[in-house]
Amino acid sequence: MTDHRPAIRLLPKQSPMPLRHGAVWAYADQLVLDRRTKALVPGTIVDLLDGEKRYVATGAFNPSSKIAFRVLERAEGVAIDREWLKNKIKRALELREQLYEAPFYRLIHAEADGLPGVVVDRFGATLVLQPNAAWAETMLDDLAGALRDVTGATGIWKSASGRARGLEGLDDASTALTGTVPDVVDVPMNGAIYRADLRGGQKTGLFYDQRENHAFAARLAASGSVLDVFSHVGGFALASLAAGAKRAVCVDGSAAALTLAAEGAAEAGFGDQFSTRQGDAFAEMDALAEEAATFDTVVCDPPAFAPAKSAVDAGLRAYERVARKAAPLVRSGGYLVLCSCSHAVDLKRFREVSLRGISKAGRACQLLHTGAAGPDHPVHPALAESAYLKAIFLRLS
Amino acid sequence: MTDHRPAIRLLPKQSPMPLRHGAVWAYADQLVLDRRTKALVPGTIVDLLDGEKRYVATGAFNPSSKIAFRVLERAEGVAIDREWLKNKIKRALELREQLYEAPFYRLIHAEADGLPGVVVDRFGATLVLQPNAAWAETMLDDLAGALRDVTGATGIWKSASGRARGLEGLDDASTALTGTVPDVVDVPMNGAIYRADLRGGQKTGLFYDQRENHAFAARLAASGSVLDVFSHVGGFALASLAAGAKRAVCVDGSAAALTLAAEGAAEAGFGDQFSTRQGDAFAEMDALAEEAATFDTVVCDPPAFAPAKSAVDAGLRAYERVARKAAPLVRSGGYLVLCSCSHAVDLKRFREVSLRGISKAGRACQLLHTGAAGPDHPVHPALAESAYLKAIFLRLS
Repeated sequence: MTDHRPAIRLLPKQSPMPLRHGAVWAYADQLVLDRRTKALVPGTIVDLLDGEKRYVATGAFNPSSKIAFRVLERAEGVAIDREWLKNKIKRALELREQLYEAPFYRLIHAEADGLPGVVVDRFGATLVLQPNAAWAETMLDDLAGALRDVTGATGIWKSASGRARGLEGLDDASTALTGTVPDVVDVPMNGAIYRADLRGGQKTGLFYDQRENHAFAARLAASGSVLDVFSHVGGFALASLAAGAKRAVCVDGSAAALTLAAEGAAEAGFGDQFSTRQGDAFAEMDALAEEAATFDTVVCDPPAFAPAKSAVDAGLRAYERVARKAAPLVRSGGYLVLCSCSHAVDLKRFREVSLRGISKAGRACQLLHTGAAGPDHPVHPALAESAYLKAIFLRLS
Repeated sequence: MTDHRPAIRLLPKQSPMPLRHGAVWAYADQLVLDRRTKALVPGTIVDLLDGEKRYVATGAFNPSSKIAFRVLERAEGVAIDREWLKNKIKRALELREQLYEAPFYRLIHAEADGLPGVVVDRFGATLVLQPNAAWAETMLDDLAGALRDVTGATGIWKSASGRARGLEGLDDASTALTGTVPDVVDVPMNGAIYRADLRGGQKTGLFYDQRENHAFAARLAASGSVLDVFSHVGGFALASLAAGAKRAVCVDGSAAALTLAAEGAAEAGFGDQFSTRQGDAFAEMDALAEEAATFDTVVCDPPAFAPAKSAVDAGLRAYERVARKAAPLVRSGGYLVLCSCSHAVDLKRFREVSLRGISKAGRACQLLHTGAAGPDHPVHPALAESAYLKAIFLRLS
């Protein structure tokens, strides 16, 4: 243990074994929280000791968070500084450069990349950094510097809109940390061009996690027509057009997102094959059904209907409803892609309610493929059950 | 119900609802098995009635199989003849033609393609047909004729080596049904050329189910070195070379399989970058560890260590051992791909023991991707839990 570093302790009854064998967190109720520790600044780097004062791990301490200790380093006596950060970022970058030809991807995916609570998306020369844990906020200068050193980024945007920041006692003020950050960037992905509004945040940003699922859907949609419901900036629709789909329709509630989708279609030369319908997704699906419209491929990628455990039942009903409304819009022999990004709903239950919805629509189906978040969103082994993104690819009778 | 067709009945206490809602089988102990029904020829097409003599489904009956009734058709009064078979095959072909550029794929995947117990792999102009249910054996001429009509195949090989045939009371005599069947064919897949010995059966045939996993591994292995353990005809190694890997080593117990792998590497122009080690996979991994050999990517795709429920514990130990032996052969920051094709071991348990094996080897890891059988192996919704093939892609510290 380095001399200058504060130490915190596991409660005597608390076994250090999970942490020694790969656990990434310790909760507040597992730790000795006395006046001294409670006085530590949120985000302080500490050494965690067991009940017998033996070293367990180095990590970040936040007395005001339920996740009070986050493992940063298992070896003893290692300095957590800009060099340490650079090594983690280099290691993360090496994976993405192996996977992708262009510098557009999730660069840092928190625990799995060894930087708990830190998420970084790369948009060419611009990085969007989400410091969702207190330690990352206190080391923000080093973190931004390390990111710039390793990637050569000319601009870093700090996005503070993540829900996790509130749990850590952090503010929600987004800002440019360094350099110039463009409002909107062109993102090449799966042969398409996506328009990403980096400062606009969740509503009009870009999600890299669906990239592999976009690609798989595009294989199915190639040469046909595709309906992209809850389309956001056109993730599935634009990839399908790039793969050879003849026609794509995007449905979304956000006019801003649809405008960006249309711009992306036009930039890639598919403006004539692309159209949008702004409105409530369920109402638009009803309207399409009344028009007796059918498509070769229909994709539904709704927002998280069950963001928390308390919302699971309502969420499952909503997912079933999506399947029931979408199935009639698929031609006989066509494809239906259904997605869920709800942490609280696992694949099995999502698949069950989706299949029930399809069955209620009077259609039989084959299950072709199950997708998850792409490999630039790696998962820490200790969190292997936590895969939040699910996409099921079906063919309908 | 068609007049000339025998009827069988569900036991009075047996609800017809599962079958009405998509179940694909009825077991012998759910049916009235009297002298009349027991006298029916295995594979007879029958109408299934419920306890009140109402029509449930049309299907194939086999009094000597535990799976005594297999649903063929839910509509009443439909003739099960060559035209009916052709329609099923056409529908299956439409999917594969959407997915693949060349005619090399699993064409019929049993229940999910509406032809229970029937598996057909396509190798260009040659089809390998596995009639693993009695009805397919009794309708073999129509089945072969329908396949020829729809695909234009010049040769059909009947492979009778499947374990399922024994349970149906069928023989194990493989033979050419029609036309000429070459001994070995060149199969283009993921940019590589695979040499498939169609008549040799399982030991030196070709498995299409790993195609997507080959492709994903090849992305990781590109530009590096790859060790393909339990390589068979070189599935992962040859795809990796085609994607740009510098060097590939195949390990397998079968000299015949390794010869075909080497032929495939040479045909694709990678002969100089390819080598083999014949022997027990565990012993060869030990030998490589003693040589302190490391690779950028290591793949282990062993045979089913837990083919049945009785073998689960031994199987899990074997999978852990594979992971523990393979991990030391991966360079720091390199990739490990672990596969299981055991029906009786689910993803969660396979992942657990694999992660434990890696941990015992003293390595930490990230979970990048989880793969399954490709989309030419669709799954029937009623069998959605049955996904047998699992591949986990990890990056090691």
